[in-house]
Amino acid sequence: MGQRILGLDPGLAILGFGVIDGGDTTATAAGAAVVDFGIVETPANTPVGDRLCTLHDDLHSLIQQFQPDLVALEKLFFYRMGNTILVAQARGVVMLVLAQHRLTPVEFTPAQIKQALTGYGNADKSMVQESVMRELGLPKIPKPDDAADGLAVALTAWFQR
Amino acid sequence: MGQRILGLDPGLAILGFGVIDGGDTTATAAGAAVVDFGIVETPANTPVGDRLCTLHDDLHSLIQQFQPDLVALEKLFFYRMGNTILVAQARGVVMLVLAQHRLTPVEFTPAQIKQALTGYGNADKSMVQESVMRELGLPKIPKPDDAADGLAVALTAWFQR
Repeated sequence: MGQRILGLDPGLAILGFGVIDGGDTTATAAGAAVVDFGIVETPANTPVGDRLCTLHDDLHSLIQQFQPDLVALEKLFFYRMGNTILVAQARGVVMLVLAQHRLTPVEFTPAQIKQALTGYGNADKSMVQESVMRELGLPKIPKPDDAADGLAVALTAWFQR
Repeated sequence: MGQRILGLDPGLAILGFGVIDGGDTTATAAGAAVVDFGIVETPANTPVGDRLCTLHDDLHSLIQQFQPDLVALEKLFFYRMGNTILVAQARGVVMLVLAQHRLTPVEFTPAQIKQALTGYGNADKSMVQESVMRELGLPKIPKPDDAADGLAVALTAWFQR
């Protein structure tokens, strides 16, 4: 029985997502197949509330479309003061929508994701992206970066099942 | 013509609110009358997503009940690392609900609220609370503190109209 996993890299400007079906294929190294990946973008020159509405509505649609069994999120850390509040506000809306769909996310730190995909917690971004491509049997590195990050966190959840 | 103002002090554990009608009375020093004040509480021992759902649903109900013309919020600053992410996540849900009701909040820093209510940007909490009581002609200081903070930010918006 396969498991559909939605991986999210939540942000206010861009939310990256990756959807995989784990256990439904033996054709890839990971034993998981890509269903879809992409981003939800909210325009920078519009009020924060409107951007959060877009995020809310688009994430609802994603969940309705893909019906994931499991949702995986990158854990939020402080990196830059001002930006972190915006990211955390967006993340609050993500957590809300997941709860409205009765989904409890699993969360991974960036180091856990790097470790799971490359065996090395300090791996750089390109190493992680190459691992995503290789594990999922993709012809090239998924773009944009936020979508690749969504697939990476979904794969981490799959590996840690 | 009066103006109904909803003041919010957003948090995850407790959201304080205060509702005033500005310009509908000459009986108080502020020229504004208290409509209601109180708190929305979310239980600490439940998942964050469920708490955000409660916040979302209760704030919708407050807005439907009181139909404010204007919403005023205390601006978020970093104070403690871990707590700020939770507060910012809750604030993201607050901003979402306001936008869903086509309400654009005005925001004030703690110093602006203290200045507006006491004439002194470094005033302590009790000075602000006494000013809220006096300006709105209340028989005693409104409790709990978060509800008094909601009234204080609503009054600030009224004074700065």
